[in-house]
Amino acid sequence: MIELHDLINEIGADFDGKSINISALNTLSDATSHELSFLQNKGYVSQLKKTKAGAVLVTPDMVENVPSTTIAVVVDEPYLALAKASKLFAPALVDLTAADALIGEGTMVAEGATLAKGAVIGKNCTIMPGVYIGRGTIIGDNTIIHSNVSIYHDCIVGSDCIIHSSSVIGSDGFGFATTKLGTHVKIYQNGNVVIKDDVEIGACTTIDRAAFGTTLIKEGVRIDNLVQIGHNCVIGEYSVLVAQAGIAGSTELGRNVVLGGQAAASGHLKVAPFTTFAARAGITNDVKESHKVYGGFPLMEQRAWLKLQVKLSRLLKS
Amino acid sequence: MIELHDLINEIGADFDGKSINISALNTLSDATSHELSFLQNKGYVSQLKKTKAGAVLVTPDMVENVPSTTIAVVVDEPYLALAKASKLFAPALVDLTAADALIGEGTMVAEGATLAKGAVIGKNCTIMPGVYIGRGTIIGDNTIIHSNVSIYHDCIVGSDCIIHSSSVIGSDGFGFATTKLGTHVKIYQNGNVVIKDDVEIGACTTIDRAAFGTTLIKEGVRIDNLVQIGHNCVIGEYSVLVAQAGIAGSTELGRNVVLGGQAAASGHLKVAPFTTFAARAGITNDVKESHKVYGGFPLMEQRAWLKLQVKLSRLLKS
Amino acid sequence: MIELHDLINEIGADFDGKSINISALNTLSDATSHELSFLQNKGYVSQLKKTKAGAVLVTPDMVENVPSTTIAVVVDEPYLALAKASKLFAPALVDLTAADALIGEGTMVAEGATLAKGAVIGKNCTIMPGVYIGRGTIIGDNTIIHSNVSIYHDCIVGSDCIIHSSSVIGSDGFGFATTKLGTHVKIYQNGNVVIKDDVEIGACTTIDRAAFGTTLIKEGVRIDNLVQIGHNCVIGEYSVLVAQAGIAGSTELGRNVVLGGQAAASGHLKVAPFTTFAARAGITNDVKESHKVYGGFPLMEQRAWLKLQVKLSRLLKS
Repeated sequence: MIELHDLINEIGADFDGKSINISALNTLSDATSHELSFLQNKGYVSQLKKTKAGAVLVTPDMVENVPSTTIAVVVDEPYLALAKASKLFAPALVDLTAADALIGEGTMVAEGATLAKGAVIGKNCTIMPGVYIGRGTIIGDNTIIHSNVSIYHDCIVGSDCIIHSSSVIGSDGFGFATTKLGTHVKIYQNGNVVIKDDVEIGACTTIDRAAFGTTLIKEGVRIDNLVQIGHNCVIGEYSVLVAQAGIAGSTELGRNVVLGGQAAASGHLKVAPFTTFAARAGITNDVKESHKVYGGFPLMEQRAWLKLQVKLSRLLKS
Repeated sequence: MIELHDLINEIGADFDGKSINISALNTLSDATSHELSFLQNKGYVSQLKKTKAGAVLVTPDMVENVPSTTIAVVVDEPYLALAKASKLFAPALVDLTAADALIGEGTMVAEGATLAKGAVIGKNCTIMPGVYIGRGTIIGDNTIIHSNVSIYHDCIVGSDCIIHSSSVIGSDGFGFATTKLGTHVKIYQNGNVVIKDDVEIGACTTIDRAAFGTTLIKEGVRIDNLVQIGHNCVIGEYSVLVAQAGIAGSTELGRNVVLGGQAAASGHLKVAPFTTFAARAGITNDVKESHKVYGGFPLMEQRAWLKLQVKLSRLLKS
Repeated sequence: MIELHDLINEIGADFDGKSINISALNTLSDATSHELSFLQNKGYVSQLKKTKAGAVLVTPDMVENVPSTTIAVVVDEPYLALAKASKLFAPALVDLTAADALIGEGTMVAEGATLAKGAVIGKNCTIMPGVYIGRGTIIGDNTIIHSNVSIYHDCIVGSDCIIHSSSVIGSDGFGFATTKLGTHVKIYQNGNVVIKDDVEIGACTTIDRAAFGTTLIKEGVRIDNLVQIGHNCVIGEYSVLVAQAGIAGSTELGRNVVLGGQAAASGHLKVAPFTTFAARAGITNDVKESHKVYGGFPLMEQRAWLKLQVKLSRLLKS
């Protein structure tokens, strides 16, 4: 909890309104009455009008759109102000005052693994050498975590999961505000990663923690090696992500989506369930029709892409 | 060794034929008289007719193609039955009853490295901190394994090799059977990885263990960073794989094949020796002609790809 | 320091000229009077004529272009000779005679991290479990190094940096000379990596050390997960490299360059400052114009690429 007045003082802005306690930062649509939000992109003004946030960072011209129940904090660059504020909510990486990790019955923790204070491991797990599990992270039952995996603080991994070596769960999402001078100010990533039951994750795969809220991998997902999943993504149940695929921040896949090798999706998209993407498909818009196979970059139906290649081979011969 | 009757009972199928001891699972073409195989894709029926497997999982309509020396086990979904059976052959990750690791003369094992029981390290090796070498894995002489590398159980690494940090050798191949409900059942990867002499492997590179048999990296191969090599691949002698290249399962490269950065190959292909692939080349069919340079996706000769780009730039101006 | 005569003897060449002490290998343009250089590609003959190297490895036909102040060492295959010589300058990975690591005030080094002898860590740093920091590497103040990061020997990391888990700094660049028989001889990478202040590096990212000299990441750079940076690259101030981007060896980016996800650049290029590259852009030539957005492969302005896609969609319908 931080007093709004103190927060504004810390980030170097002016404010003489009412002060409240702020517990966290959040998006306009998810923020509650003790959270601080922001409006940077005016395309989201309809969300501003409906926000339940306790306070919002806005530019002067947007004040009139702030609901009466929300405190307007006027700044020149709301996103930059948010970045500065985010640091105030970043927890310490290490908390030596927490209780020792709890380890369930039948769980094998190898010598050379590190369970931070405050971690909780379920029953019959296997934690191999070189694994690091951060403060407050919770692991279910029967889960196998291979050597040299890192799981940052405050994440949740389900039961019956397997995570292969060198993978990283809960690293910081790629978030920063860029100043007018071209320098970057980190947006501390104060959310987490939640992985549901029966998920298998390959080697050297990275799943970033959310800026606020949760990066969510639903039940039964299969992720191959060297896959990138950005902050705040949602991967639907039983989806399959083949090696070297990448998904940018805040994109949501429905259930049973299949991404071929090196396929990728831009951020902030929604992909319909039961869709399949060929290797190297590049998704840059929402995908609304299920039960189809897509490919190419820009994306089209895979059979259209194949037809286009035939046309191109004719063009080459002409 | 598992009794066939017990195995079938465990996977929940019916069978009242003769029982034999099954030592492992294998493909139709490689299985021997004490191994269990399967036919899922009817395109492989000619292999079924010639198989030397002790028993095969087949659908009812395929029974007539099973050789008289092979026991037919009839199931609705052979691949799913195989997946369930594979778990029965998965060895324990950790074997505390094995002998302590053997370490050759002149070998330096850093504090903070973990050699599992049953591992064997040759002479004059350097094993840096955070390295994990699994049960039963054998390393040759003069090999350098950098910090935080993981080598799973039962693999073989030759002499005069260098493996860079965070790379993973012998992680599970990406194998599962998907049920009619869309859930996935893991195919335990009971094969291994064999790396021959004089191989250098970059950082954060992943080489998956075989489902059955061996993923093989032949002598003198050079692999860069962030490369993915799927299960059951064979990489020919002196081949060169540049950063972020990916090779899907069961693909075989001949000797002195060069893959440029971010190039990739689909699974189950054969690539002729002495072929070169430009950066981002996408190989989706067998490549039969040696001493050529290929590029593009779909793949063509690199000079055709360059010519096509000229045509496209004209199209753009038209 | 190695006597030139001894060096030539070790690599198996003939030479009866004057001997000098050689302290290192270097490029024609950077080598000084106690360094050995080489000319393999005759396109660089103008650099040979101006070199200040103490000695150069050249083919017989190039001797006439060697400056009078430089000793010409005649060999059939200069690059192969260089590779053989490079091994003589490779330092030991581990130096047990060096002083214990120095650790600044307020720095937290987790149990399970390894600081090699001769490393120097600044003040108020956080070094998480499983981190390896090599001999002679220097870290600034307030820097956070997450679990299982590897930083090889003789590198420099600035102050206020964050490096995420499993990333590798200073692994060997991908360098070798290929013999006429198709085998490869390693070029030992005797340079280093220098990372300036306020740099954040994602998870499972790899930054290779230079063959000679330095791979340089300038102030304020932001690098996402699974990014590859080849040896001898220079990344300009405040540049942003999104996940799975790759930059081949010796390429130099100006300041505030942005590379989208999976974008890539070939080696030995110069990219103008304040340029932006869309996801999957493929840079294969120098980019000279700032303040533009590029995309496609081959590279063009992004609006041209978008226009081309419209033309292709018409071609598909024709």
